Amino acid sequence: MENKTIPYKIYLKEEEMPTHYYNVRADMKKKPAPLLNPGTLQPMTAEELEHVFCKELVKQELDETTPYIPIPEKIRNFYKMYRPSPLVRAYELERKLGTPAHIYYKFEGNNTSGSHKLNSAIAQAYYAKEQGLKGLTTETGAGQWGTALSMACAYLDLPLHVYMVKVSYEQKPFRREVMRTYGAQVTPSPSNTTNVGRKILEEFPGTTGSLGCAISEAVEDAVTHEGYRYVLGSVLNQVLLHQSIIGLETKTAMDKYGIKPDIIIGCAGGGSNLGGLISPFMGAQLRGEAKYRFIAVEPASCPSLTRGKYAYDFADTGKVCPLAKMYTLGSGFIPSANHAGGLRYHGMSPVVSELYDQGLIEARSVEQTSVFEAAEYFAKVEGILPAPESSHAIRVAIDEALKCKETGEQKTILFGLTGTGYFDLVAYEKFNNGEMCDYIPSDEDIAASLAKLPKVE
Amino acid sequence: MENKTIPYKIYLKEEEMPTHYYNVRADMKKKPAPLLNPGTLQPMTAEELEHVFCKELVKQELDETTPYIPIPEKIRNFYKMYRPSPLVRAYELERKLGTPAHIYYKFEGNNTSGSHKLNSAIAQAYYAKEQGLKGLTTETGAGQWGTALSMACAYLDLPLHVYMVKVSYEQKPFRREVMRTYGAQVTPSPSNTTNVGRKILEEFPGTTGSLGCAISEAVEDAVTHEGYRYVLGSVLNQVLLHQSIIGLETKTAMDKYGIKPDIIIGCAGGGSNLGGLISPFMGAQLRGEAKYRFIAVEPASCPSLTRGKYAYDFADTGKVCPLAKMYTLGSGFIPSANHAGGLRYHGMSPVVSELYDQGLIEARSVEQTSVFEAAEYFAKVEGILPAPESSHAIRVAIDEALKCKETGEQKTILFGLTGTGYFDLVAYEKFNNGEMCDYIPSDEDIAASLAKLPKVE
Repeated sequence: MENKTIPYKIYLKEEEMPTHYYNVRADMKKKPAPLLNPGTLQPMTAEELEHVFCKELVKQELDETTPYIPIPEKIRNFYKMYRPSPLVRAYELERKLGTPAHIYYKFEGNNTSGSHKLNSAIAQAYYAKEQGLKGLTTETGAGQWGTALSMACAYLDLPLHVYMVKVSYEQKPFRREVMRTYGAQVTPSPSNTTNVGRKILEEFPGTTGSLGCAISEAVEDAVTHEGYRYVLGSVLNQVLLHQSIIGLETKTAMDKYGIKPDIIIGCAGGGSNLGGLISPFMGAQLRGEAKYRFIAVEPASCPSLTRGKYAYDFADTGKVCPLAKMYTLGSGFIPSANHAGGLRYHGMSPVVSELYDQGLIEARSVEQTSVFEAAEYFAKVEGILPAPESSHAIRVAIDEALKCKETGEQKTILFGLTGTGYFDLVAYEKFNNGEMCDYIPSDEDIAASLAKLPKVE
Repeated sequence: MENKTIPYKIYLKEEEMPTHYYNVRADMKKKPAPLLNPGTLQPMTAEELEHVFCKELVKQELDETTPYIPIPEKIRNFYKMYRPSPLVRAYELERKLGTPAHIYYKFEGNNTSGSHKLNSAIAQAYYAKEQGLKGLTTETGAGQWGTALSMACAYLDLPLHVYMVKVSYEQKPFRREVMRTYGAQVTPSPSNTTNVGRKILEEFPGTTGSLGCAISEAVEDAVTHEGYRYVLGSVLNQVLLHQSIIGLETKTAMDKYGIKPDIIIGCAGGGSNLGGLISPFMGAQLRGEAKYRFIAVEPASCPSLTRGKYAYDFADTGKVCPLAKMYTLGSGFIPSANHAGGLRYHGMSPVVSELYDQGLIEARSVEQTSVFEAAEYFAKVEGILPAPESSHAIRVAIDEALKCKETGEQKTILFGLTGTGYFDLVAYEKFNNGEMCDYIPSDEDIAASLAKLPKVE
């Protein structure tokens, strides 16, 4: 019966799209800890934050009480160009697995940036433009965030400087060219355009760069150019707020068809996608209206939730950004070079960390070969080549569906498919050639990294 | 008024999706000329064609009278994974251009193959599987068709051998890896796995291959392996039939909202996208129910409609396939090496050719730098990075919208956005660096190529 009425893809109508972001902090009894000033180790004030972020975003960053925050019309119009994203019933995957489970995924990859990052990029660029700022700076590693922000800035005619980790700049020329096509100025990092870049180049002439160094250059660029601000694509409360559009659309679509997920699964790097997907469901649970199982999936090579510590740490390896209380492996932790599966961030969004600490979210770590196995299986059956990041969620969704096959339970599983893998084919090639291996950091390595956490009373 | 009710994207409901393909030949008074046997130069019989294609596809290839042909359920289910594709109202483009025109585009790029090719790939693979064939062979240049067929064959568990032009195999490793991820066996062509490949390698040891050579290898592979057939992604009547799903969805969506396009624009290489998009509209016009302007857009470097001849010619440079009557530049015509914009085929679908010859379609040729300018403009405004092929249609759509701005006319313009440019960033890089130039073949070059057309009475 139900199978007949639920289509392969549920698209909300334009008028059913969310008009407000949902702020899960408003429904949390114990709130996430505040950001600290890296110099004074005191909570960052709005005034201090306004040196870094534009005013409206500072308000959003600090707002712990307003549950619904209006989405400006211009952002809603931009969303209409690539949203609502489809909520897909994975009929073919269910059939192939032979599971009684019902599997759904929210697909965020159908836009040129290839991921959910665009949801926050447009919001951040919009508020910057509204405030009359002259431009933005940011860093990018693999390039998903840089691409998303380039698209948003192009739409709003806002100049953008992207510092791209040199090794990616050279090895991922396609990502670079997408950003350039959207008008961004892309600089390989370290560069000789900043003091910090020149210093690093002097010290390590042959370096291929790091995310930490790119962040430091982007921050210096923003600070030294009148009217420029630095922006960040994950971790922050404001980013989770913008990403709540993923969960809001999903919940509206599910409610419309009377579907209630038993398990909600998301991959977790900095936590922006997971936080955005689960927020409205978590809110319902916090208000006592429903009950779900939430599972965060992280790579075994970078296991901040499953093996990290809940503590204050620097958000960046360069230690120039505010400190955040979060599950962390230490800001100096760098995943093994053979890790191709994304989600390399050493910490986790403070909101997700606090919910996890309260026992409201489960966490699971998975190894990358099993992630790519799931990715390839999914690609063949469902016709979408998933990003390695997203494939962490696919892995666990398949595992849960296979458990249902054993027990005969007809659970409803929902997962976030955050993006496509078109720019990750070097990793797929490794996997196709049987050259991919797994890496799990030793207890000693993690302990050594955690020993360097900043001392915060 | 109208603006308020038409959303940015019109998605048909699943139950509104076409259940039948539309065969425009049924409504054409003068039919396209039949394929000829390359040996006897007589019309190919069904029996002869069955050595090349599977039975059901031969039936479709030859059927000039049945207007609607049912789409099997399994194909419809596959379509449901990535269709209906959105019909997009280009509000942002209209605003930016300041045109009174209403612009719509049917976007076929939201699937992993990145283009409309998948629509025919799944149909061809399905009928092969139904007939109990053991596998398929094909060739691919840039890789769009090979990717689409790999996805279709993976879904149906049908082995696939792809011969990929060696220069693309080496320079487009990402396309190659997508195909391998979908389980296809990808061989760089020329290879030493076929007689024709070995012969070419002996004669030209350093060759980087050509489409003609890859076709010849794929055909030899099919003929020498029991239960294998060779399949082709464009030009053929059957392919246009499958691609009619593009136009059918578009027309249903437009009819639903009471929209009538004045101008319908499609890029044209082999003609599969253009033919598929316009078929149902052309049918309505042929039946006297409506009147439209149809514009085929081709690259100035490969101008088969605007500067070619309507004559029988070989469909492939290897001269092993049947002859087709079509607008052609001669099967030996090779566009300049600096041509990065796709649509490199020397001929044009017999259906499109016949409609053009009857004066029912206009043709326009555009130069690639102006195509990439339009592509970049479109990407920034509408947020989609278009394939170079599709950008030919964008160019003319923008030109027509600007004409409306001059005259004040509020025309409705529809164009086909066939795919995305994620795998064409080498070309975008050239453009971004100002290194792209135009090339228009001389009258002498074209005359010399046409002088070698086969003599058919």
